Amino acid sequence: MVLTINSTPRKDGFRMPGEFEKHKGTWMLWPTRTDTWRAGAKPAQRVYVEVAKAISKFEPVTMCVRAEQFENARALLPHDIRIVEISSNDAWMRDIGPTFVKNDKGEVRGIDWGFNAWGGIKEGLYFPWDLDLLVKQKVLEIERISRYDATDFITEGGAITVDGEGTLITTEQCLLNPNRNNNITKEEVEDKLLQYLNIQKVIWLKDGLVGDETDGHVDEVVFFVRPGEVALSWTDDPGHPQYAVLQDAYQRLEKVTDAKGRKLKINKIHLPNQITLSETESLEIDYSCYSFERSPEVTFISTYINCYLCNGAVILPTFNDPQDEYAIEAFKNMFPDREIFPINTREISVGGGNIHCITQQQPLP
Amino acid sequence: MVLTINSTPRKDGFRMPGEFEKHKGTWMLWPTRTDTWRAGAKPAQRVYVEVAKAISKFEPVTMCVRAEQFENARALLPHDIRIVEISSNDAWMRDIGPTFVKNDKGEVRGIDWGFNAWGGIKEGLYFPWDLDLLVKQKVLEIERISRYDATDFITEGGAITVDGEGTLITTEQCLLNPNRNNNITKEEVEDKLLQYLNIQKVIWLKDGLVGDETDGHVDEVVFFVRPGEVALSWTDDPGHPQYAVLQDAYQRLEKVTDAKGRKLKINKIHLPNQITLSETESLEIDYSCYSFERSPEVTFISTYINCYLCNGAVILPTFNDPQDEYAIEAFKNMFPDREIFPINTREISVGGGNIHCITQQQPLP
Repeated sequence: MVLTINSTPRKDGFRMPGEFEKHKGTWMLWPTRTDTWRAGAKPAQRVYVEVAKAISKFEPVTMCVRAEQFENARALLPHDIRIVEISSNDAWMRDIGPTFVKNDKGEVRGIDWGFNAWGGIKEGLYFPWDLDLLVKQKVLEIERISRYDATDFITEGGAITVDGEGTLITTEQCLLNPNRNNNITKEEVEDKLLQYLNIQKVIWLKDGLVGDETDGHVDEVVFFVRPGEVALSWTDDPGHPQYAVLQDAYQRLEKVTDAKGRKLKINKIHLPNQITLSETESLEIDYSCYSFERSPEVTFISTYINCYLCNGAVILPTFNDPQDEYAIEAFKNMFPDREIFPINTREISVGGGNIHCITQQQPLP
Repeated sequence: MVLTINSTPRKDGFRMPGEFEKHKGTWMLWPTRTDTWRAGAKPAQRVYVEVAKAISKFEPVTMCVRAEQFENARALLPHDIRIVEISSNDAWMRDIGPTFVKNDKGEVRGIDWGFNAWGGIKEGLYFPWDLDLLVKQKVLEIERISRYDATDFITEGGAITVDGEGTLITTEQCLLNPNRNNNITKEEVEDKLLQYLNIQKVIWLKDGLVGDETDGHVDEVVFFVRPGEVALSWTDDPGHPQYAVLQDAYQRLEKVTDAKGRKLKINKIHLPNQITLSETESLEIDYSCYSFERSPEVTFISTYINCYLCNGAVILPTFNDPQDEYAIEAFKNMFPDREIFPINTREISVGGGNIHCITQQQPLP
C-alpha cells in the first residue's frame, strides 16, 4: 500500500543503511537535457548505458525515462535492465530520487525530500524542475513503498553520506546554504537529519570541492567505505585548486569520532587532472538563460570518490588519466571483497557529476 | 528479467486464463483526451475513480497516467491505488494493455499485440496512437514480466473472451476486418489465437453490437461466466436495433460445443435503453478531424455485459435505467459467490466503452 506516513523514520524505527549494505537494486534516470549534455545527450547516454550494464552484473537496475526516449533507451540498454516511464528534468537519481530507510522487520520506506534544482530559480542549475519533484514519489509507487513527506526540507542524496550506524557526514556549504532552506539553523538541519535518517551524529565539513555546481556535495569529497572508515578526495599539491578544501576536510575528519565513538580510518585517494570541454564540445550544448554555463573556461570536477558501491562491486569512475591505475589499486586494497569495475566517465563529469550522482540504491528489506 | 521471448505461449506451455480466475491485480489508464471525453475528461475521470476504488476493495489496482496528470490523479485516487507514469493516447486498458498468459509452474508472461487505434488512420478512432503502442511493454517492464512479441498481428483484448479451458469467442466483424489485418484468412487468424492464447477452439460470432466504435468487440456481446457458461446481451424486442445481431449470436452459441465438447449454458441479460449525448454535452467535446464524432445524433452502446470480474466480485455497469435492477438480480444468480458491485457508468459509455474496456486483469501466477 503506497501511503504517505505522517511520522518520521526515527519514531518508527527506520534508519538509512550505508551504501555498502546489501541492495535490492539500483535506480537511474536517462539523460536528455540538451542544455546540460552535449550533442543531444548522445555521448552521455552511451556512458549511462555502460554504467547501467556494469551495475546490472551485480544487482537489478531500473532506468527511468521520459516517454519520448523509451524506445531509444530500450534499444540501447540490454533487456535485463528494466525501463520504466518516469519523466524528469535531468538525470541525477542520487539527488532527484528518494532516500530509502529500513527497519529490522524487513520493511523499507522512502523519504521524499524537497528539491529546488540545487539552489532555486536564481542559483539553481535549470528551471523548471517540476518533473523532478515527482520522481521520488513515482519510484516509491512503482515499488509500492510507503513515503515519508519531507518536502518542507530541501536537500539532495549527494549532500549526505552515512555509515548506517548513526553517523552522517555533510558540508556546511551545501546544507546550510540559504539557497536551499532559508532561515534555518544548523541545529534545525541536524534535527531534520536525525529525525528522517535516524542518525545520532552529524560530522560537518566546511566546503565541498571548488567549482561543484551543487554547492559542495559531500559525495565528491568523502564516502563511507564501511563503518569507521572513509575514502577522501586528495591532493598533496599546495597549488591544486582543491588543496585547501581537502586539507580542511582531512583535519576535521582526523579529529572527530563517529556515533559509536570510533576514530575514522581515512583513505586518501588522489585526484585525477581536472576536466574542461573543448570549444567544439561546448558549442554542442544548447543555451538557456536558466542553465549553468558549460564553456571551455569552466573546470569540471573529477574524483574517484564519486563512485558507486553495489552488491559485491565498486563501479569506479576513471578519466583516461595517469592517476586511474593508482585509484584502482587503492580501491582494491580498500575493498578486498568487491570487484573494482572502472568506467571512463568523462562525459558524465562534464554534465556536472559522476557515477554516484546518477545512481540511487534501494536497500534489501 | 524483462525479455522478449522468441517463441509462442503454446510452445512454452502458457495459456490465457479466464477473467474469472484469480487475479494478482488490475491495470487501468487515466482518461484525458478532450476529443473523446467531454469537459476536459473531468466527468469521466470521476467515474474511473469510482471503478478503481470499487476494484481496489477486492484486488490491487494500478492506474497509469501521463506525467501532466500524475498529481491530479494522485489527488483524486485513494492511496492504496498505485499510480505509475505510463503515457497513452486514450484510456482503454483492455485494448491497449497486454494480454497475460500463465503456466502451471507459477510463471506469468505478457503478449504485446499489434494495435492501430481500432482501424488505422482512416477508420480508427484517433491519430496518432504512438503512446498506446508502448503501453503493453511498459506494463510488463514494471512487473518484470517477459514479453511475447505479437505486434505483427493487430487485435485488442476486447475482441476476445476465453474460458481458460481452450475456448475463445470472437466476432468475424472485428477479427476479420481488413482495417486490422489485411489479407489474412480466417484460418490464419485462428492460428494466431491458437499459438498465442493456447486455445483449442474459436467460436465465431458474426457481428458485434450495432454502433460499436471498435468494429464489433465481443466484450459488448458475451462473456464467460465460468467454463461452459456465458452471459449474452439480449433483447426480446424485434424493433430494437440490436435484435438481429443478438438473435444471430444466440443461435450460433446455442449450437456450438466448447473445446471440451460441452454445450454452453446461456444467460440472457436484457439491454438497458441506449444512450445519447445532450447538445450541451456534445459541445464540451473537442473537434479533431481524426476523431470519432460524438454528436447528439450518435447512439452509444450500453450493456451490462461489459462488466469486470475481479477477485470475489463483479463490477457491474449501471445506467440509472429501469433494467438495472433486473441485471443486478441476474448477476447475483449467475455469481452466487461474488459480490455484485454496481456503478453508474454513463460517462464511460459516451466515451465508447465501459468497465470491461477500461480494465485489464493480471492473473496470479
